Amino acid sequence: MSKFQPPKGTRDFLPEEAILRERVFNTVKNVFERFGFSPAITPSFEYYEVFANKYAIGEESLKNVYSFEDKSKRKLALRFDQTVPMARLVSTNPQLPKPFKRYEISRVWRYEEIKRGRYREFWQCDIDIVGSKAMIADAEIIACSIETLKELGFTDTYVRLNNRKLLTGLIEYVGVAENKVSDILRCIDKLDKIGSSGVKEELKKTDIKQDSLDRIIKVIEISGKLGEVLSKAEKLIGGNKSGREGILELREILEFLTEMKYEEDVIIDLSLARGLDYYTSTIFEVMSKDRQIGSLAGGGRYDEMVGKFAGSKDPIPAVGIALGIERIIELMRDKEEKKKSITIIFVANVDSQVKKDCLGIVKKLRDSKISTEMDLMNRDLRKQLDYANSQMIPYVIVVGPDEIKSKKYKLRNMKTGKEEELKLEEVIEKLNK
Amino acid sequence: MSKFQPPKGTRDFLPEEAILRERVFNTVKNVFERFGFSPAITPSFEYYEVFANKYAIGEESLKNVYSFEDKSKRKLALRFDQTVPMARLVSTNPQLPKPFKRYEISRVWRYEEIKRGRYREFWQCDIDIVGSKAMIADAEIIACSIETLKELGFTDTYVRLNNRKLLTGLIEYVGVAENKVSDILRCIDKLDKIGSSGVKEELKKTDIKQDSLDRIIKVIEISGKLGEVLSKAEKLIGGNKSGREGILELREILEFLTEMKYEEDVIIDLSLARGLDYYTSTIFEVMSKDRQIGSLAGGGRYDEMVGKFAGSKDPIPAVGIALGIERIIELMRDKEEKKKSITIIFVANVDSQVKKDCLGIVKKLRDSKISTEMDLMNRDLRKQLDYANSQMIPYVIVVGPDEIKSKKYKLRNMKTGKEEELKLEEVIEKLNK
Repeated sequence: MSKFQPPKGTRDFLPEEAILRERVFNTVKNVFERFGFSPAITPSFEYYEVFANKYAIGEESLKNVYSFEDKSKRKLALRFDQTVPMARLVSTNPQLPKPFKRYEISRVWRYEEIKRGRYREFWQCDIDIVGSKAMIADAEIIACSIETLKELGFTDTYVRLNNRKLLTGLIEYVGVAENKVSDILRCIDKLDKIGSSGVKEELKKTDIKQDSLDRIIKVIEISGKLGEVLSKAEKLIGGNKSGREGILELREILEFLTEMKYEEDVIIDLSLARGLDYYTSTIFEVMSKDRQIGSLAGGGRYDEMVGKFAGSKDPIPAVGIALGIERIIELMRDKEEKKKSITIIFVANVDSQVKKDCLGIVKKLRDSKISTEMDLMNRDLRKQLDYANSQMIPYVIVVGPDEIKSKKYKLRNMKTGKEEELKLEEVIEKLNK
Repeated sequence: MSKFQPPKGTRDFLPEEAILRERVFNTVKNVFERFGFSPAITPSFEYYEVFANKYAIGEESLKNVYSFEDKSKRKLALRFDQTVPMARLVSTNPQLPKPFKRYEISRVWRYEEIKRGRYREFWQCDIDIVGSKAMIADAEIIACSIETLKELGFTDTYVRLNNRKLLTGLIEYVGVAENKVSDILRCIDKLDKIGSSGVKEELKKTDIKQDSLDRIIKVIEISGKLGEVLSKAEKLIGGNKSGREGILELREILEFLTEMKYEEDVIIDLSLARGLDYYTSTIFEVMSKDRQIGSLAGGGRYDEMVGKFAGSKDPIPAVGIALGIERIIELMRDKEEKKKSITIIFVANVDSQVKKDCLGIVKKLRDSKISTEMDLMNRDLRKQLDYANSQMIPYVIVVGPDEIKSKKYKLRNMKTGKEEELKLEEVIEKLNK
């Protein structure tokens, strides 16, 4: 046996892993749909040029794309993310009604070094709203992420919220050379992890003036209640046009979130910068209060990328979030007892004589939507119970001639060992609860 | 726009297609799970040798595999089907409990000529039971397929059932040279389509004796009630060991299916041969009575393939079925009205003054699990209603200052145009029905 393994960086999911994975996907989809997002499905590969497009993933990432030629020598690429295919989908389908609210949960592939928790095939889980430039769309995305994580059982999450325009305003306000902006953003973003003294050290390396440095730290360290943070920031950088716009946009989102009673789930964190270049306005991360866990989802507004990618004359505004779905599944797996099987009840037979009677019982249970198994291996009773046990099936009934005569069955709870004598209808009623 | 298209042979599924697709997958999974099948997930690509293995897909099919090298020069192959990866999974995981009952619904890729209804990326939907050689497993697979198609709304299906051992017996009984067997099987399989005179013509081409030909036709044309067909077949070929075994196995399956009340859903069709070489015993197809539609699912028992593939000393028996899921989705799409959106209700505002009040209403609807949308585009009321209409959202409430004061809302059924004045709780109650 074991002649073949799955390719390096890919995984098999046996039922005990796949059951959890499917459950997470279903829960997530249900919340997305409640918020009016619909599924859209794109192919697993695109023409290579789609990812090589200069508004797509960038040259560094392009190195990690799995690419190949088909028989007619067209170069294809396994998809690297779901955002570029979504932009491609929008450009292929200009007739799509706006707003276009879609979700996609599917596989992506990256040829990367394999580390703990990093794979070459993994799942991404995205929602995006395309076509609206209104801040209510940003609030919608944030609200949907909060509800999704709550529904998955994460009870200690909060949202860090910031705005790229505000950061641009900050940088203009302190007066920094254009070519240092992204370095500075990268330093700022570390406040959460390395504290203000750490950020100061990092900023010094970028060679900016002490005065500018102090002023940056002063702004990004602002904390307090939502309104207060914005008022303080306004006093410092409200004179700058971009800064003022960012503050206004944040105020607007906060009003919407407050109206939906999420104000306690959100903090303004002026040090949040996020990596991707394409964000133009709102940016956010959903965090666990458990610092070991950190970020569970992240996203923002990107008003330029889709339009440029599509070669459209007019900009196509968009805002979205990606759930760190692999991380979320990993955390849930650590918390929960693994289910080895979906089966609720095993119908065991005392011997092969009653096997056919068992089939009628199994049929009735299944007709009542109860997930049911029976012996398919011609095993004796003890081995049937061993199997049910090893699969952690929660209930068993044992069927023998007496049970068939009396039409009453002993329903055994495999966890507690407790037995109840019930008619089949009563078994169904109990299990359907 | 439209700079990029999806690669040839692949498809984008916009919401109106993706919603149906997801719904079909969910329905199918629910039935599979009710029968005690669990999900298992394998990677999208395997090492090339997995598919090139001589017990895998065969040389002809291998030509249509998408293959590529990763950066470390290992040859990989996008998966061609789900059966070979399943055999690989079993060989990689000898510890799996038996029976191993798994389903997988995922994408496969084949570089083939594109015809109507044939794509290079498409979905397969399989259930298999590995490790049991008992005929009750075959009955389980057949019962599960029948229920799945019923649940999807196919009310006129029936199962054609046969057995490869019986066909071997038939061929031995008429006395045909070994090298003609597969040609003859291929001819026999066409009875359903071209009738007995057509099959006779075809058989003549294989150069078999007139007497053998007549005897074959006599057996494969046997029809009638289940038991009768088997009795008649037994009289003719029961003297042959393999034929007798096949008849016994069919009898056993029929007993199990009768016990589960599926006897009216099944016919014995001695002309059913099915293409794949690896079947060893039971074979079946689920058909629509509408001859234009034909086969919706097909499968059988393959007791040799998995063990040989895995290089196991002992055989690893298996039985499974593949639903023609792309065909099924296509048929359902023709029957049903397309849903453009999953949203149940759109909360419209008369003007931007009441927008924030709308948010509270939207939140309450969503908290009650009702899929809800609101305006994200700062549209006027007429355009909001146009949007709801174009998306075929079934209900709308319009919120203005009066509604906010009275806390009563006009719920408009967009199909009938009927309006009802209701409190929000009453709206929720009505929509949750």
